[in-house]
Amino acid sequence: MLRTQSSAVRELLKYSKMPNVISLAGGIPAPDLFDIPGLEGALDEEISEHNRDSFQYGITEGEPRLRQQIVAFMLQRGIRTTAENVLVTAGSQQGLDLIARVFLNPGDTILVERPAYLAALQVFTLAEARMLSVPTDEQGINVEQVEAILSNESVKAIYLVPNFGNPSGCTLTFERRQRLVQLACRYRVLIIEDDPYGEIRLQGEHIPSLYEIAQGVPGAEDSVLYLSSFSKILAPGLRTGWMVVPGEVYGHLAVAKQAIDLHTCTLSQRIIERYMASGRLQPRLSVLRASYRERRDALCAALRRHLGNAIQFNTPDGGMFLWGCFTSGVDASMVLKHAINAGVVFVPGEPFFFDAPERNTLRLSYSTITPASADEAARRLATALHHANSH
Amino acid sequence: MLRTQSSAVRELLKYSKMPNVISLAGGIPAPDLFDIPGLEGALDEEISEHNRDSFQYGITEGEPRLRQQIVAFMLQRGIRTTAENVLVTAGSQQGLDLIARVFLNPGDTILVERPAYLAALQVFTLAEARMLSVPTDEQGINVEQVEAILSNESVKAIYLVPNFGNPSGCTLTFERRQRLVQLACRYRVLIIEDDPYGEIRLQGEHIPSLYEIAQGVPGAEDSVLYLSSFSKILAPGLRTGWMVVPGEVYGHLAVAKQAIDLHTCTLSQRIIERYMASGRLQPRLSVLRASYRERRDALCAALRRHLGNAIQFNTPDGGMFLWGCFTSGVDASMVLKHAINAGVVFVPGEPFFFDAPERNTLRLSYSTITPASADEAARRLATALHHANSH
Repeated sequence: MLRTQSSAVRELLKYSKMPNVISLAGGIPAPDLFDIPGLEGALDEEISEHNRDSFQYGITEGEPRLRQQIVAFMLQRGIRTTAENVLVTAGSQQGLDLIARVFLNPGDTILVERPAYLAALQVFTLAEARMLSVPTDEQGINVEQVEAILSNESVKAIYLVPNFGNPSGCTLTFERRQRLVQLACRYRVLIIEDDPYGEIRLQGEHIPSLYEIAQGVPGAEDSVLYLSSFSKILAPGLRTGWMVVPGEVYGHLAVAKQAIDLHTCTLSQRIIERYMASGRLQPRLSVLRASYRERRDALCAALRRHLGNAIQFNTPDGGMFLWGCFTSGVDASMVLKHAINAGVVFVPGEPFFFDAPERNTLRLSYSTITPASADEAARRLATALHHANSH
Repeated sequence: MLRTQSSAVRELLKYSKMPNVISLAGGIPAPDLFDIPGLEGALDEEISEHNRDSFQYGITEGEPRLRQQIVAFMLQRGIRTTAENVLVTAGSQQGLDLIARVFLNPGDTILVERPAYLAALQVFTLAEARMLSVPTDEQGINVEQVEAILSNESVKAIYLVPNFGNPSGCTLTFERRQRLVQLACRYRVLIIEDDPYGEIRLQGEHIPSLYEIAQGVPGAEDSVLYLSSFSKILAPGLRTGWMVVPGEVYGHLAVAKQAIDLHTCTLSQRIIERYMASGRLQPRLSVLRASYRERRDALCAALRRHLGNAIQFNTPDGGMFLWGCFTSGVDASMVLKHAINAGVVFVPGEPFFFDAPERNTLRLSYSTITPASADEAARRLATALHHANSH
């Protein structure tokens, strides 16, 4: 089923590249915000040394100097770790797959948010895990329901995107994070904390990660695996992410990584290490936050202006996505057909549910829009919705 | 078990980086033979366009222009295919893992050569496949024994490195390739043809691939999946390889690849595409062949000079490896302990067997040696063997 849904989304993305189509469908970071001079500078620096190691096999765990940079970067997020606990991956997607390979046996139960990140559902489907979805509200996953499930049956892991979830845009509150860590410890459940968007906070205060919280709870130290990526903050095409994992687990993941692809691209790792060492990352993050904030606000305002009460949506504290629903209850896939004709595309919510989809939901990405295109996109979406409602 | 063996080899490689140690242990291509100016030229060309797509997400199947280059390259190897049948992977290691994920269920039987490529054994172990090894002689895998097994029990796949195998150095003859294709067709078994070394032929004539042969046998067209890589001919650190696969299978592998890592590093793919378009690959392959031939010959001569009949080994037609055995029957792991003291390292044969290892065997790589270091390496190896035999 997920294979078909995945194909449907891939089909959809073809429309998003047609001229005159405004895309709210992509999950991609804004290419106009890439720090091209900074990336090229890092590349030039690496190449100027004519170091043959740039092109040679590397170690499975990742380039040592990059892992050191990641350790320093994590400390800024409140996570104390060492290079020996940092595993470099080919994006956080590979991190998820590694975890699934090492920890999930066919039939194992994993809790996911409802709605959940599509590509995570694909990984867990590939692992033949049994997924159970837990409703998510504005404060993140419903912890009472998590506890009800854990007290009733054996669960292997909980998968969460706690900051500005894809697609929900929701952020898990500090209180719920604390309770989840306690539950994970009590019921011996693994928390998979996927945090690609954490640095793209657009408003509000930083909330400590589940990983950080777990380090302060005796007995819970090993219950959280933390995943992140350079895809949303630097360059997704370099396919580089990382995991922070406790010592015991680390070796198993590294052995699996070795069998799966030997190691992550050496050149990518070295470019990123030099970029981080250049000191350009923090200023770039400020640029990203300001730009995404402007884009989010533009899209929210345009939707209110053109669709009024016909659409409900949250205003996320960060990340790249609005999650909404058509209040008429119309199927978002039907609206999409009209939207393509009108010259705007989005992702219907359906593929983010692995069962019982809420068909009137949709995900809107503001990452690649401008204030002007946001207005036009909302205008076209209103037209499409009008047509769909009239059928 | 393989996990431990893998760790043992990884431990060993630490010694190989110590000063004054001559390594015959590595499976790495010679860094002094990397075409650094050519790679830097390709990189400069890519960067000079300041194209943000170099750093953006790409499509799962691989960059279209790279796939076109691969199609042309495959034609030179005798394989006619189209870009729609070429899947770009993060090295052929990932290709193997993808195949295992899509085709192998736990308990499925897969035939492997004896001895077999260590990292392939790790992939199949991770997939919980049941491995059966088939003896390999100078002409490659024993086809009679393959047939005897196929006629007796259900086998899902046969894994082969037909050209200059790692570790055996053996090349499968044309006649055996034809028979294997016929057997695969008759018994509906998949052949996984792993060909990272095919371009590094040092003597003798090119032998058509199993894939090419299968295209000429009615009913066998879909029985071979072909894997190769830029690691041994260009730059392993770029982590880029490819598969040539029939249409039906292609979609399944692409969906799995999407779940596993979304796509291969965009920048790596673009550098390789530009390098291939520059026309430098064929001249570089000539340089590689001449250099590896010189190194192979130097190591063979040095071994004969210093060890005489104490070691038996083949002279491979290509690739990077000699496979040998100590005629005294001494355990190669014991010899290795003395060898480390003497300042030379190699890989004992044991990890290349998943059962009943032949403990007096060893793999010697000539890829990174010089004629002078070959002589010294053999001298030290003779000293180590003398000590081991005296214990």
